[in-house]
Amino acid sequence: MRSLLLLSAVLLTAAVPPKKLPTPSDIVAAAPASAWRTIAPDNLMIMDLASGGRIVVQLAPEFAPVHVANIKALARGRYWDGATIYRLQDNYVAQWGLNESDRPWPKGITAKPPPEYTRSLKGLNIKPLGYPDDYAPAAGFWQGWPVAYSPKAGWATLTHCYASVGVGRDLAPDTGTGGELYAIIGQSPRQLDRNIALVGRVIEGIDRLSSLPRGPAPMGFYPDKAQNVPIAKIRMASDMPAADRPSYEYLDTDSVSFTRYLQVKANRHDDFYQVPAGGVDLCNVNVPVRKRGLTG
Amino acid sequence: MRSLLLLSAVLLTAAVPPKKLPTPSDIVAAAPASAWRTIAPDNLMIMDLASGGRIVVQLAPEFAPVHVANIKALARGRYWDGATIYRLQDNYVAQWGLNESDRPWPKGITAKPPPEYTRSLKGLNIKPLGYPDDYAPAAGFWQGWPVAYSPKAGWATLTHCYASVGVGRDLAPDTGTGGELYAIIGQSPRQLDRNIALVGRVIEGIDRLSSLPRGPAPMGFYPDKAQNVPIAKIRMASDMPAADRPSYEYLDTDSVSFTRYLQVKANRHDDFYQVPAGGVDLCNVNVPVRKRGLTG
Repeated sequence: MRSLLLLSAVLLTAAVPPKKLPTPSDIVAAAPASAWRTIAPDNLMIMDLASGGRIVVQLAPEFAPVHVANIKALARGRYWDGATIYRLQDNYVAQWGLNESDRPWPKGITAKPPPEYTRSLKGLNIKPLGYPDDYAPAAGFWQGWPVAYSPKAGWATLTHCYASVGVGRDLAPDTGTGGELYAIIGQSPRQLDRNIALVGRVIEGIDRLSSLPRGPAPMGFYPDKAQNVPIAKIRMASDMPAADRPSYEYLDTDSVSFTRYLQVKANRHDDFYQVPAGGVDLCNVNVPVRKRGLTG
Repeated sequence: MRSLLLLSAVLLTAAVPPKKLPTPSDIVAAAPASAWRTIAPDNLMIMDLASGGRIVVQLAPEFAPVHVANIKALARGRYWDGATIYRLQDNYVAQWGLNESDRPWPKGITAKPPPEYTRSLKGLNIKPLGYPDDYAPAAGFWQGWPVAYSPKAGWATLTHCYASVGVGRDLAPDTGTGGELYAIIGQSPRQLDRNIALVGRVIEGIDRLSSLPRGPAPMGFYPDKAQNVPIAKIRMASDMPAADRPSYEYLDTDSVSFTRYLQVKANRHDDFYQVPAGGVDLCNVNVPVRKRGLTG
């Protein structure tokens, strides 16, 4: 009799489908205005291609202050006007800019910044991912940024996810000045974490980089300079007239909405999904960012 | 005195740089001929674009036998001649093909294949990755394929890594017939594992897909059919004249060379890297594949 009851219980369980969850997009659409944080225009770098396309980079001075100060100074000094995108390596990076052999550094640039590959964990109240990370003792989110960290050793770092932006460099101990930047256009090359300075992420127009033709030379360079993609100009949003200035918000990673978003990302069970994974990689979470109207 | 000795020991340790490792490319270049395995021409699907570019897919009948049998029959029946690539969603998929509303299925096609999302672990001697996986109890490699598996539940599955190829489908319980295929062109969407049939991977020409313009309509579709990228033909290599047939090899994932490659991938410490990660994600390993000369 007992085994029959157990069998019935099993059948009953199997007959009741697990409750469907909302999609991540549903969660984002339902997030209240209070869950969104405006990105400071002084941290928005606007790259306009000669072809008319726009790429917007959010900078993270909290992680690489000297490199980011250089980048802002280069944008303000119009250093990159007429520069190019010259490297497209498939499943790896798009790279653009100039270096001192192309054009001398303007005044006020730190030519040899320190290796800002990690920062102190102090002062960062990190929201944990809640799943293992293969490249660091722990992973999570701080003010919208995906980060890896070591509670024991006390360091934190931005991570190489899709659309992350870093500073090109030669072999160590060179750390790169900031004139040449790259964005990740494929599977997250997390082995670069803590070996190179990350300075931000593309929040609009990454598809304009990822859909460019790959360079046929080793490491994805365009062997013929005529293939390089011309950049019209790069400016900080804070230096643009208010009426032209774009504005963006990210979903607060400390908000209830983000907690729910993360939970659903790790347990997809909407109309398309039958088997929730029960976990998610840091670089598959994609902190939601949205454009607001012009601020003018 | 004791503390001075300790201090000296620390200084001595700091003064001896850790031994530099070879790069993953060094390991691959040094792998002996015996470490390479030829891919059977009956599992090579050759897609030639009207523009002249070629994309080569290695099929995995061991994981999705009914879907793969359909795909081979469609190629042999010239079903896709004149089909198109019609969907490019950034950081997600490129999708191509036809379905029964475009052209009736030829004879011998299983219109409603079973959900070949996992297979039995039995008979698979898997080389473990050796690091945690966020989407499955375990991950590793079998005959060159990245796989996730559950030793306890006894299932194994191919995984959604960069360049993986799967079968487009509508909402469950539809599993897709095989006429419409997708390839991953961004961060590995591992949440799709066990929810859709994976049938292989692109081993040549993934950059021809990943560099196509993204579709501006929702989910990356091209709203104007004139934007679709025409496919000239899709054939199985085994049906091509021997003189025209391309041939490929993968690095045996049970070889000593692959073990060393995996170890170095997880611990990059060559001239560019100062801090080895001490781990690697399954989809960042990239089993080496190389083209041989024509077999004719």
